Amino acid sequence: MIRVGVAGASGYMGAELVRLLVRHPHVELTDVTSERLAGEPLAKVYPHLRGLTSLTLQGLDAERLAAEAQVVFLALPHMESQRAVPVLRRRGAKVIDLSADYRLHDPNDYTVWYQTSHDDQGNLAEAVYGLPELHRKSLAGASLVASTGCYAAGAILAMAPLFKNGLARLEGVVVDGKSGVTGAGAQGRNVDPMYLFTEANENIQAYGLATHRHTAEMEQELGALAGAPLRVQFTPHLVPLNRGLFTTASVPLAASMSTGEVLDVYREFYAGEPFVRVLDEGQRPTTRSVVGSNYCDLTVVVDRRTNRAVCVSAIDNLGKGGSANGVQNLNIVCGFSEHAGLEAPPVYP
Amino acid sequence: MIRVGVAGASGYMGAELVRLLVRHPHVELTDVTSERLAGEPLAKVYPHLRGLTSLTLQGLDAERLAAEAQVVFLALPHMESQRAVPVLRRRGAKVIDLSADYRLHDPNDYTVWYQTSHDDQGNLAEAVYGLPELHRKSLAGASLVASTGCYAAGAILAMAPLFKNGLARLEGVVVDGKSGVTGAGAQGRNVDPMYLFTEANENIQAYGLATHRHTAEMEQELGALAGAPLRVQFTPHLVPLNRGLFTTASVPLAASMSTGEVLDVYREFYAGEPFVRVLDEGQRPTTRSVVGSNYCDLTVVVDRRTNRAVCVSAIDNLGKGGSANGVQNLNIVCGFSEHAGLEAPPVYP
Amino acid sequence: MIRVGVAGASGYMGAELVRLLVRHPHVELTDVTSERLAGEPLAKVYPHLRGLTSLTLQGLDAERLAAEAQVVFLALPHMESQRAVPVLRRRGAKVIDLSADYRLHDPNDYTVWYQTSHDDQGNLAEAVYGLPELHRKSLAGASLVASTGCYAAGAILAMAPLFKNGLARLEGVVVDGKSGVTGAGAQGRNVDPMYLFTEANENIQAYGLATHRHTAEMEQELGALAGAPLRVQFTPHLVPLNRGLFTTASVPLAASMSTGEVLDVYREFYAGEPFVRVLDEGQRPTTRSVVGSNYCDLTVVVDRRTNRAVCVSAIDNLGKGGSANGVQNLNIVCGFSEHAGLEAPPVYP
Amino acid sequence: MIRVGVAGASGYMGAELVRLLVRHPHVELTDVTSERLAGEPLAKVYPHLRGLTSLTLQGLDAERLAAEAQVVFLALPHMESQRAVPVLRRRGAKVIDLSADYRLHDPNDYTVWYQTSHDDQGNLAEAVYGLPELHRKSLAGASLVASTGCYAAGAILAMAPLFKNGLARLEGVVVDGKSGVTGAGAQGRNVDPMYLFTEANENIQAYGLATHRHTAEMEQELGALAGAPLRVQFTPHLVPLNRGLFTTASVPLAASMSTGEVLDVYREFYAGEPFVRVLDEGQRPTTRSVVGSNYCDLTVVVDRRTNRAVCVSAIDNLGKGGSANGVQNLNIVCGFSEHAGLEAPPVYP
Repeated sequence: MIRVGVAGASGYMGAELVRLLVRHPHVELTDVTSERLAGEPLAKVYPHLRGLTSLTLQGLDAERLAAEAQVVFLALPHMESQRAVPVLRRRGAKVIDLSADYRLHDPNDYTVWYQTSHDDQGNLAEAVYGLPELHRKSLAGASLVASTGCYAAGAILAMAPLFKNGLARLEGVVVDGKSGVTGAGAQGRNVDPMYLFTEANENIQAYGLATHRHTAEMEQELGALAGAPLRVQFTPHLVPLNRGLFTTASVPLAASMSTGEVLDVYREFYAGEPFVRVLDEGQRPTTRSVVGSNYCDLTVVVDRRTNRAVCVSAIDNLGKGGSANGVQNLNIVCGFSEHAGLEAPPVYP
Repeated sequence: MIRVGVAGASGYMGAELVRLLVRHPHVELTDVTSERLAGEPLAKVYPHLRGLTSLTLQGLDAERLAAEAQVVFLALPHMESQRAVPVLRRRGAKVIDLSADYRLHDPNDYTVWYQTSHDDQGNLAEAVYGLPELHRKSLAGASLVASTGCYAAGAILAMAPLFKNGLARLEGVVVDGKSGVTGAGAQGRNVDPMYLFTEANENIQAYGLATHRHTAEMEQELGALAGAPLRVQFTPHLVPLNRGLFTTASVPLAASMSTGEVLDVYREFYAGEPFVRVLDEGQRPTTRSVVGSNYCDLTVVVDRRTNRAVCVSAIDNLGKGGSANGVQNLNIVCGFSEHAGLEAPPVYP
Repeated sequence: MIRVGVAGASGYMGAELVRLLVRHPHVELTDVTSERLAGEPLAKVYPHLRGLTSLTLQGLDAERLAAEAQVVFLALPHMESQRAVPVLRRRGAKVIDLSADYRLHDPNDYTVWYQTSHDDQGNLAEAVYGLPELHRKSLAGASLVASTGCYAAGAILAMAPLFKNGLARLEGVVVDGKSGVTGAGAQGRNVDPMYLFTEANENIQAYGLATHRHTAEMEQELGALAGAPLRVQFTPHLVPLNRGLFTTASVPLAASMSTGEVLDVYREFYAGEPFVRVLDEGQRPTTRSVVGSNYCDLTVVVDRRTNRAVCVSAIDNLGKGGSANGVQNLNIVCGFSEHAGLEAPPVYP
Repeated sequence: MIRVGVAGASGYMGAELVRLLVRHPHVELTDVTSERLAGEPLAKVYPHLRGLTSLTLQGLDAERLAAEAQVVFLALPHMESQRAVPVLRRRGAKVIDLSADYRLHDPNDYTVWYQTSHDDQGNLAEAVYGLPELHRKSLAGASLVASTGCYAAGAILAMAPLFKNGLARLEGVVVDGKSGVTGAGAQGRNVDPMYLFTEANENIQAYGLATHRHTAEMEQELGALAGAPLRVQFTPHLVPLNRGLFTTASVPLAASMSTGEVLDVYREFYAGEPFVRVLDEGQRPTTRSVVGSNYCDLTVVVDRRTNRAVCVSAIDNLGKGGSANGVQNLNIVCGFSEHAGLEAPPVYP
């Protein structure tokens, strides 16, 4: 058993971490924080947890967290993680950060996309990008994990085999993401009118046109796989459901290939992955099939008329796009079975 | 480990049973049936189960089921359970029936509400009504369990302490149930136009006015608690969500009481129950807080102007209103921990 | 053409008034107000109105409103209408108030339910309760109309024929209301977390247990029809849809009657009503069928086992439960066709 | 007044036509057909129309339709329109066809995309593509209109100004469409399990990968504007709402331009259009703002990093994507005001 803390437990990402960790066979949850709700019992704030935890939310104090926990999850807004990480690491705690603060290796990229300088470049240099399917070996020895962004997870997993195998052209990649409302910006229980039921329900809209920050993660990770820089034209959308993130990526192929040939490449790339399910030709992923879980369901179809691969993936934005993926990172960092705490099948329908 | 079979695994009740049983620590799932989809791999029919089971759906053959399983769940339409149960029991299998066939002790009630005679009155006499909160002791030794109907579960749990303690008048009980679409009649993947997305979405409607069959279960169980026959005026409603069943029961009180006094009675009645959470005064149950779980959240408020108790409960119609409650019954029948297979917290939001 | 103003145009009730009034054949909309958004073009705040109005929201100034409009709609929170009405009436403007301030004839009732004293009892005495189906004649000569509350509209229309004809017992009436999120308290663009998409979606809950203020309207109007005071035990619910309010009322009958006999009474009571549709035996109202319109669809079924009438009605909470009903009141006050501005059929599905 | 008929009135497209036409100031609706429901009163099949029409559904008989109507709408599956059109035209009726049968000018394209030969090439040669924003002049004199497909309408309107003005490159166009369930294949009241509430709700999925037939319309119309053939890589998606179609088109620019410059081109292109609303920089279209109407809201943002224009549009798939657009075509063909029958503002929220 290891002692684990969650900073930012009152947001949806944090609440999902708690939901998974209270049943994790190797974890004792010892400390949960919320600036806004410090002093409140967690089970009062999140009534689904009634009877499942007796923890009370505390203020965010990195010293205390490091004393009470061996591993600390940070489910904080970006910029706030940068303040906690130096303290936590100095005190010997390992960190799994669900914010964006340590995802971009180049501090200049951080400045470009987050419009502020990075204040903890020393730790940034040691952070491992927390997508197990790409960085399992590095994660095994990591003490600072930058868990992937939700749109980035869906997009990178959808396209990685193409770039890793040199099958894609580097120009003309277009990615369209659709997210449920728990993920697309409604951080915690933020109350922007856009996220009111009456406004989000029966509605579709694009947002962050040409500016969404997860674009930088896609370019970093796919570029590394390709061995050359590339650009992604990415558009996120808000759709009326709670959980679910669907990615449609249109990738120009370097040469003519059949759908079956591309699928073979995918199956080989993801062979043995515990949480990626490559669908057979003719089957289609749906977000419904992964809700509540860490699975990513995906497939590819070649559009021969345009010689593009249409890569589609479905994840739960709080699952493989967030907290469950963070727990998988924890399992790798700590040497647990990757399934530990993630055994529950998706909830369907 | 016991060997368990599920007849009717292609409906939502059956699929939820499979979802719970594939992770149950003491269960080996050995046989799943579907008349409609015999021959199909279960993981193809229900893609959330991809990678979690290699079972193939088979035709319904009670002899084979009894040979392959020590306990058989029946998630069949009513009338069909009656045909399977005699064979299963003769062959020594225990049965947990999720249909309505063995719930009403008096065969005349069956005739009145289901408009056909009961063909297996011998076994009917031995069936135990499968609501652990009322019949735990009888269930422990049962070999035929009639798991409760979804509306009945929500309504009985909401009102049981009142009738058990003689606090309610027997006349004038009015119950209003609201169910998500997985429960209110969309058995399996039935395709009545009423259940189309376009028809059910953004819509509320009542159905089964004055005729819904779960009324009889409420009257049987509450009457037994009260020690006298009573009538319930029950109206079910279809509301646009997948999972969730909310019950509002208006019960005339026998004497004047405060909300706090009634709540004390509830807390005592449900003390130690693993899956009933009595909320404190001022808190309100929501279906959202129990989705995917076996919990029933409930509370009571006294309307002093009318001297009625307003009893409200929230369950997942596939959870405490169906499959999860069935698994709790299994655990009691087999002497397992009642939490076995039901550990996963509700999925929220 | 008459000049009309809308105070409180930035809430959903106000926005719906504007939507109806910009196309009303006899209305020129001259003044729209919002404290919060004064100075903003209405078409920017409500993008569905782009190109349909060039009005700009102004601060709430009753003097100016009275100068610019012959009839003023008030879509304000209660207590605020009381401040505007005396000024408006003194200046000669007629008022159609969508708030609760002038609905309860007895100022003591106001104090009981709204927990504050009524500051404009002089005008209160002259207000007409704005439900055309009950008060058409009084409305024709009214200069102050207190348009009905949403739950009250649904409940009163569902039960009025029973009480008017002495068919109901006065004790034991239980009413259950289910409302979409535009109506059940999300006034304007209020941002209570309960109304976030993530919280309201896939959720059902009761609220205002034993305390909802529309109860008083039901008792006032039904008691007047019955000629004797009565009590209603009312429970409102929030369900996940934008528009729609469904009422299920359980009314003990004074004598035994068949469903057909009761329906005959309803058909006679509502004969000639332009916006009430009494459904035939076997048909069921749905909120879906009235969205965007002023219709109330309703029917009754007798539960012979309990000798109760189950009265069900469906309205759009912003339609017959709010703004459209207000426009019908306007039409009656001004002597227009009652259909004026309300011709558009419901939007389905 | 002209006499109008609707063939296929029991599907959602047909029902929406009826909803608009029963209030159209210059139309008398004389004949409505449904093979499946012939003999049923329309107001029974579509309860929102209770009290608004006394028509009864009849079988599909083109001779009778031509006798009873001067203009006939066809809301039929493809292939069926081809059988009715020759009869209707021979008898002198004008036709507005909402099916795909007469949209593709080149019969070979029909064969490629619909995998069957076109049986009425004579009339095909005379059909006008029914998108008023591109073909208003030709429509004015047309007697056979092929009203545009829903995804095609959204995509063509989103991109037309770019291609018309030579601002786009012809290769690398990627279009992503998201449709509510009334449009994406749930023709009429079809009962494919994919369209069940329980399956479509809380779900996102792509379908028709690389094969959706509306692609051909986009290529035909945009190619004509560009003066050269082009290819579109199009992916449609099903999202959980009733009405609404959102298009995100990523178009490589021929030269570097600013968002403001491109928007100027759009504003000029759509100047005077009654139903296209070009949003200002910083504003975003939402489907919510056009529900129930014929509006198309759209805007463009230039992604300078990739030199692509991100073109986004929002329509109601039954509105500008279907029936309302068909009524606009009717108005042009008959010389009515284009707003006739389409005056009702969008219903929001």
